[in-house]
This record gives sequence, C-alpha cells and structure tokens, in this order.
Amino acid sequence: MFGEFELIERFLKPAPAALDRGVALGGGDDAALLIPQAGFELAVSVDTSNADVHFPSDAPAKAIGHRALAVALSDLAAMGARSRWCLMALTTPGGAFEDEAAAACWLEGFGRGFHALCDRHQTVLAGGDVTRGPLGISVTVMGEVPKGQALTRAGARPSDLIAVTGALGGGAGGLALWQRGERDLAHPLLKRYLLPEPRLEAGIALRGIASAALDISDGLLADLGHLRQASNVGAELDMDALPTAEGLIEALGEEQAQAAMLGGGDDYELLVTLAPGELEKAQKALAEIGLALSVIGRCCEAPGVYGVPADAAPGWQHFHRGRP
Amino acid sequence: MFGEFELIERFLKPAPAALDRGVALGGGDDAALLIPQAGFELAVSVDTSNADVHFPSDAPAKAIGHRALAVALSDLAAMGARSRWCLMALTTPGGAFEDEAAAACWLEGFGRGFHALCDRHQTVLAGGDVTRGPLGISVTVMGEVPKGQALTRAGARPSDLIAVTGALGGGAGGLALWQRGERDLAHPLLKRYLLPEPRLEAGIALRGIASAALDISDGLLADLGHLRQASNVGAELDMDALPTAEGLIEALGEEQAQAAMLGGGDDYELLVTLAPGELEKAQKALAEIGLALSVIGRCCEAPGVYGVPADAAPGWQHFHRGRP
Repeated sequence: MFGEFELIERFLKPAPAALDRGVALGGGDDAALLIPQAGFELAVSVDTSNADVHFPSDAPAKAIGHRALAVALSDLAAMGARSRWCLMALTTPGGAFEDEAAAACWLEGFGRGFHALCDRHQTVLAGGDVTRGPLGISVTVMGEVPKGQALTRAGARPSDLIAVTGALGGGAGGLALWQRGERDLAHPLLKRYLLPEPRLEAGIALRGIASAALDISDGLLADLGHLRQASNVGAELDMDALPTAEGLIEALGEEQAQAAMLGGGDDYELLVTLAPGELEKAQKALAEIGLALSVIGRCCEAPGVYGVPADAAPGWQHFHRGRP
Repeated sequence: MFGEFELIERFLKPAPAALDRGVALGGGDDAALLIPQAGFELAVSVDTSNADVHFPSDAPAKAIGHRALAVALSDLAAMGARSRWCLMALTTPGGAFEDEAAAACWLEGFGRGFHALCDRHQTVLAGGDVTRGPLGISVTVMGEVPKGQALTRAGARPSDLIAVTGALGGGAGGLALWQRGERDLAHPLLKRYLLPEPRLEAGIALRGIASAALDISDGLLADLGHLRQASNVGAELDMDALPTAEGLIEALGEEQAQAAMLGGGDDYELLVTLAPGELEKAQKALAEIGLALSVIGRCCEAPGVYGVPADAAPGWQHFHRGRP
C-alpha cells in the first residue's frame, strides 16, 4: 500500500522552483511560492470532479487526469486568462490501492494525463494534497490576464452576436456512447467527452473583441441563461446555425442530437457575444489556431430566449451511475 | 432538495468585488479576479478534509467549516504569509440533503464556521465549487509574503534552537475525548481538536527571526523529520520541555499524553528553528499576540533525532472510523 508521500513523489510530484515559470518555491514545503506578474490580475477557480458523478469511474485513468484539469482550465479560458499554475487535491480509495501494481498503473496513467495537459498549456503543478476517500479530484487553477482585460459574463449588449467555438453536443454524445459500451477513445465523440480541450488560446485571442464570454459546462441553454442574467439581455437563437459535433447525428439521431446541443453539458466550448463589426476579426483570430467560431444567434433587449423548441431541456446533469 | 446554485447563494456565497481586499471580480463568473500586491510572493496551498478520515462526520457543522479552513490556513502560517483569499470545493452527500430543513441547518452552521474564520484573518472567499458525493472539503488558500521573506523548512542550522508555539497533544487528546463520547466544545482539548487556531500572526511575527518553520499536522516527530530532511540537520529534544496541552494529562494519563505530544497530529502549532540569540526577540513578539514559544530542543549536525523514547510513534493517522 502506498503512503501519501511515496504516492506524491512517484506520480504527482509538484514542479521544483523555476523562476522563468513564476515559481519561487515549488512542491515539498507547506505552501508553494508563486511570482505574479505586475500589471496582471490573477484569475482563480476550483473545479471538483467526482467518480460516477462527473465521470465514469471506469474511464481510462489518463482521461480522468486530463479531464479533471481540463474542466478547471476551461474556466480560465472563459476569462481570457493565460494559465500559469495549478494545485491538485486528489482523493483516492484506500481499498483499491492495496494491490500495489494496479495502483501504480492507475496513478501513472492519471498523472500522465494530468501532466501532459499541464505541459500543453505551460501550467505548473505547484502543489497538492492526497487523501483517502472515494475517488475525486479538486483542481485549483491560477492564470493571469492583463489588468482590466478579462472577459466576463456581464458585457453583452442587445444586438451583439452570439457565437460558439468548435461544435456542440460532443460531451453528451460521448457520454451516451460510453454508456452504450463504446470504449474506443479515438471516436470523435468519446474524445470530446473524455478528453475535452480547454479553449485557452481562443479566450486569449478574443480579449478586446468579445463583449462577454463563458464556457459551456452546464449546456448551451443553461449557460446562455447565466450570460443573459449577468448581462441583462435576451437571446434569439438560430437552430439551423448550431455547429454539430462530428458523429453526433449518426450516433444519436436528429432529435437527440438537437437535445444534446441545446441541453447537454460537458462541451467546454466558449460561448461569446460580440458586436457584429468584430465578427470577421474574431473568426480570423480563431482560424489561426484552427478553431471555428459559429454565429448561433443574437442578443436582444426582451428578456428570455427565443427560437428554440419549447420543450428544450434547460439544464444538464453530469454523469450519474446512481444517486451518490 | 437544494440545487447547486441555490446552495451556494444561500450559505457559501463568495464575496463580491472589493478593491480594498484585492478582489477585482468576486463570485458568480467563471473565475474570480484577484489583485496581487507588487513586491510580494503568492503562497498557495490546498488541503482536503474528508468525513471520517480527517474529522468525525458527526462533528458540529460549524466546527467542520472552521476546521477545513483552519488546516489550510495553517500552511500559510508556516510560511509567514498573510492570508488574503481562499476557494472552497465542497462535496456534499445528495441523500442527506433531501430533508431541506436539516440541510439548511447543517449548511448554515458550516458556512458560519467557515466565514467567521475567514473574517478573523481578513481572508476573502473568492470562489468555489459545490458537488455531490461523500462529504469532503478541499480548501485552497492564497496568501502574500514580501519577496524573499517566506519561512521555509530548509533554513535550520546545527546549533539552532527548536521551538514550538502554544502547546502539544491537544489534537490527539481532543480526538480521544471525542471518541469516548465527550461533546462539550468548551472542553479545551475538544476545542483544540475541532476548532484549531491557525498561527498566522505568529508566522508573520517570526519572519526574519526563525530560520525554518512548518506546522505540526502529522505529529511533532514526523514534522520534525520533514524539517530535518529539508534542512539537513539532526535534532536533540528535551522531553521535559514539551509544552503540554491543557487537560491532556488528566484526560489521557502521563504515558498517553507523551505519545500524543510526540506522535499525535492535528495540533496546528508552528515548529520553528532559530539562532539562540533570536530567542528573546521571538518570545517577545509572540507574547504580544498572547502566544507562548517554548524551546524544546536544539538542532545538531549528526542526522537523526535524539532524546526521545525509542518506541515513540513517528507518524499520525488522522481520524479513522474505518478504512474508507
């Protein structure tokens, strides 16, 4: 059985001090010491992913590690922040770790998924905590954004366009496939569900262009509701303009695909608003990083949301094997 | 049953923007925006407290809220950092919350314990996440320390004195009492165990005086081991000099009291080293905040720890009702 210290040392070791990465003191002391840049604000958020609530506990360990970080980074993306540091609080079931070889294998995969995504976004794992209990991961992310330039949910104006990055419905589609027994991680929907890509470059590119932004974690209609409320606007959507995740209609059929795009969560795309005159600039900026930006509607003064089927689900329950 | 948003709104609401508290944007967006001070390093740490692993699940809700934050703040204290912001990731059991009145009562108490300690240390709850699952709380704390002035575990020199704040054994003593059925939170040992006071003022007062510091969470000998390893020194302890928590010997008897002081964790006192010539200054500084600083030994060149009973327990298991 692993002790906490050996476990951290082997698989989840926080980075050592590295002044060029803003770390004056890394893992191994009571706290890490970070060096924020002058003139920047610090964007901070925490996201918990619990087994059989937010992800299937039998998902590949690598995907669990990737996904726990990705969903947290997605919040920084939505602010237009550059990710810099993270902390990981991992709770692992003691029982499952009494077989040392299985534990090492799981932790190695988990750590690999987590660290690979850290590296891809120049994010330093600055510390963490490992405790016993039912499998769950809380990830704190810290990013920086030039003072006053953060994207928030509150800046949308009536007549602004509403747009989304990438495509919709992949999260719900992938979950449905997983529940049917599909296990090929190369399937585009499973990839979207288990290995979502936080849109950090897109958030940075949209600074000064988008009037408001948030990430789609609860589902398009639910998250649009948050934006509408914060910005005090209504919204009119064009159902035909919703960008559909690859393979979604084949997997779920037209009707379920539409429900997944409107109400399914876990897409981790950015939902943004922008003045019509900014659209070309925004699309060009995102094209440079290989990402589509699709206009799906327009803000309006009248509160509420228009143009969607009356029975569209407003929210999204993450994966549930049963009531926890 | 409470929804996530209502639950946060009612009991755990992050603070709104407050520039004088370093918060440019508070709760309610994808991330909070904080304003670090120029010339300071950011000390960050995360601590998870799981029900029936780190605390008894039937402890008062107020104590659970207080304690989850206190153990995290203790890490900032050990760095000599001033606490500024925190994030709370709360996982709560769905089932227990179907009785709305009981849930409201528990959450109200939990929030009260958490917020009261925030206020006492001028710490802003800047954001959080509430999820379903077995009761557990991960708290991320963020503090500031003038560049280069943080206390670490690595600065002890041979011939430095070893000292502790407050008294030892209260955590283990309180746990033992709780397990025997004692429920009076006014009992000094129960208070030490369930409502520990992070030594933030002491950490700040010891900047520039202590050569090394850490907090006692795993037990005196275990934590002294961490300090010895980081500083590459040995230690000689004077058993007669260990400051004993109020009521400890009456509750546990001489032998168990000694074991609690050496091996019991959850004390959250600071263990520091300092040059002999700094002792008077250190004791005077702590006396001003009503805290004793007791010399309990001295560092030495020879690796290892001397002067303690050969059978003294080196580590500490937090509360366990059973294997999780």
